[in-house]
Amino acid sequence: MNPRVEAIPGSLIRQIAAKKRATSIDLGLGEPSLLPTPSHLDAAMAYVRAHGLRYTQNAGDPELRALIARYYRYPGMSEAENVCVTTGSQEAMYVVIKSLLNPATDELLVVEPAFQSYVKMAALEGLTVTTTVMRENDDFAFDAERILAGITPRTRAIVICSPCNPTGRSIPRAEAEKLVAGLRSRGGDPIWLLHDEIYREQSFIDDAAELGQLYDYTIVTNSLSKSNALTGLRLGWIIAPRREMDAMIKCHAWVTSCADTFAQAVAKSIFETPGAIREHAAWYSEARGTVMHALAASGLRALPIDGSFYACVQVPDGGLSLQAALNLIDDVDVVTIPGIAFGSSFEGWLRLSWVAGSEKSQAGISRIANHLLGHAKKQT
Amino acid sequence: MNPRVEAIPGSLIRQIAAKKRATSIDLGLGEPSLLPTPSHLDAAMAYVRAHGLRYTQNAGDPELRALIARYYRYPGMSEAENVCVTTGSQEAMYVVIKSLLNPATDELLVVEPAFQSYVKMAALEGLTVTTTVMRENDDFAFDAERILAGITPRTRAIVICSPCNPTGRSIPRAEAEKLVAGLRSRGGDPIWLLHDEIYREQSFIDDAAELGQLYDYTIVTNSLSKSNALTGLRLGWIIAPRREMDAMIKCHAWVTSCADTFAQAVAKSIFETPGAIREHAAWYSEARGTVMHALAASGLRALPIDGSFYACVQVPDGGLSLQAALNLIDDVDVVTIPGIAFGSSFEGWLRLSWVAGSEKSQAGISRIANHLLGHAKKQT
Repeated sequence: MNPRVEAIPGSLIRQIAAKKRATSIDLGLGEPSLLPTPSHLDAAMAYVRAHGLRYTQNAGDPELRALIARYYRYPGMSEAENVCVTTGSQEAMYVVIKSLLNPATDELLVVEPAFQSYVKMAALEGLTVTTTVMRENDDFAFDAERILAGITPRTRAIVICSPCNPTGRSIPRAEAEKLVAGLRSRGGDPIWLLHDEIYREQSFIDDAAELGQLYDYTIVTNSLSKSNALTGLRLGWIIAPRREMDAMIKCHAWVTSCADTFAQAVAKSIFETPGAIREHAAWYSEARGTVMHALAASGLRALPIDGSFYACVQVPDGGLSLQAALNLIDDVDVVTIPGIAFGSSFEGWLRLSWVAGSEKSQAGISRIANHLLGHAKKQT
Repeated sequence: MNPRVEAIPGSLIRQIAAKKRATSIDLGLGEPSLLPTPSHLDAAMAYVRAHGLRYTQNAGDPELRALIARYYRYPGMSEAENVCVTTGSQEAMYVVIKSLLNPATDELLVVEPAFQSYVKMAALEGLTVTTTVMRENDDFAFDAERILAGITPRTRAIVICSPCNPTGRSIPRAEAEKLVAGLRSRGGDPIWLLHDEIYREQSFIDDAAELGQLYDYTIVTNSLSKSNALTGLRLGWIIAPRREMDAMIKCHAWVTSCADTFAQAVAKSIFETPGAIREHAAWYSEARGTVMHALAASGLRALPIDGSFYACVQVPDGGLSLQAALNLIDDVDVVTIPGIAFGSSFEGWLRLSWVAGSEKSQAGISRIANHLLGHAKKQT
């Protein structure tokens, strides 16, 4: 067996999910509970009924690639040739990391707290990962200085998920400009920014940065999973400069060949329908309002929700996140994700998703507050 | 950039395909031209309309995994836990090669002629590949002795595509038993057989071996692409013993997360419908008959068609395959795939697919014969 594969530990998130009961309020979910808009599925069905399900080109249907490129219009990356359609944003990021970085010489810098997929992918490739941790005292806001300070002589790429899973923080434009200025002033080989934009359409602040607008050495990954409640469709993409894209398409071709033709037809319908990529945005905006209200009333320390569909609350009095999450399931039947699942930098925090609707979110937050704060009081 | 990715050459098959004209008889196709049966698509559509498109477990829908395991009933691998649903058989084989073999110590033995995906995937992983070549004088029949002779002290797995792309040969049961006996008698760490069964439902001989029936250290990959004309659905699977499966599921989880939920619903409909996995088998059997007749009448040297939907003919008088393929497009407007695309062992041969229907296949073979044999005569 390949020791790199065997060494990867199992998923803590899955361990927690396995404890869920039929009665549980599940705030552990990492995917929308909305249903996708049927018209996009119908359009895809009409296409495959007429044309069958043939392979597309490795990089995807050229028309879809052009639609995606033109929707985002990142400077220097706005043509079909700058897009590779992938099996969700998971394969997108995997192909980017695998193609861009040389395990013999390059390091990947991960901005933490972060979903652990980047670290796991890098481990699969034998790549060295370094991390730079945003400050808890600063509500884990993206901090250009700290990111720049994390760079080593071997750092070749920095991965940033903004809006962030788990923190819900987004890198503001001014901070992103500081980061880019710092990268530009370094000299030497450029360092890439890998922007995981998976929560882009769940963004609630005015000044969230799109790194692809600011910096030539940016590669963007995204998908329809969160924006259009299509996690199970596995349709994502990479947006990158041409030279790097050529290598990525080769890598993608031998890993999965091409993305699903039905899924690509769904994506075409979405990108051809004005506003469809944001068709769920209003729902999330309203749900966020409710959640923020519930959090403010709860007495818990919570992070600002710049974007994503997560809220994060602190376990009082230095309590450990895994124990707190297990207790919350056992004692008040609420599923949350312990911060430790996102790196040691997020120990002491819980991630709550609020995709299950306002009532469940409010009830869940209320139960969590009663339990955690009541428990904390009892201990004092 | 990762030099392993950059070093992989572009696809010769794609280069040839790019020369195709609107008028061409295309015998280069590597996918069915039949349409998929609509009822399976309808069943999947009904499912996703009702349930949305949520993630499945990383390894796939447990019911689908059980259906697949029970259809093949390979000893020791007939439970849901022995199956991982993947993004087509391409990701299946990629995950198998990546998970099973340690680039630091292990070699992959490829039985040639072979589709070059195995070699390219191994190159992506930094794995050393060795090859063992079947004999042209023997019509490239699978030869257990030659396969065993190709084993080195570092060989940990042997990949066999049977029925074979490109040759159309299948490993007969008696030959497979000789191979297995040879592997068993070696002692030391077992050597794995990786059986790419992608053309399993286009098998036309009675004694084609299923390696999973004969040998405990077999891992099988397959998909719906060829059997049900669903290349663009990207739905495949791995069948493997439990211990190895655990590592493969981890690898699959970080490469693509999980297979498409719509595609899994299509697969469920197929495996739940008696006979559906072989619903196109009669069409292929009939088409093969027509093609064999045309080949026999053509005067060309052709390989027996044990399985697959390819026929292979020899370029007369030691002609080179790439030049012959280019001439055939230019002079008689027929697209074929040069044997050199499948390794130097298949130089001098052309692969013709016969999925485009009897008329086109017959016309194409007739034009090829006139051109190649006419040309050969002129030269003498």
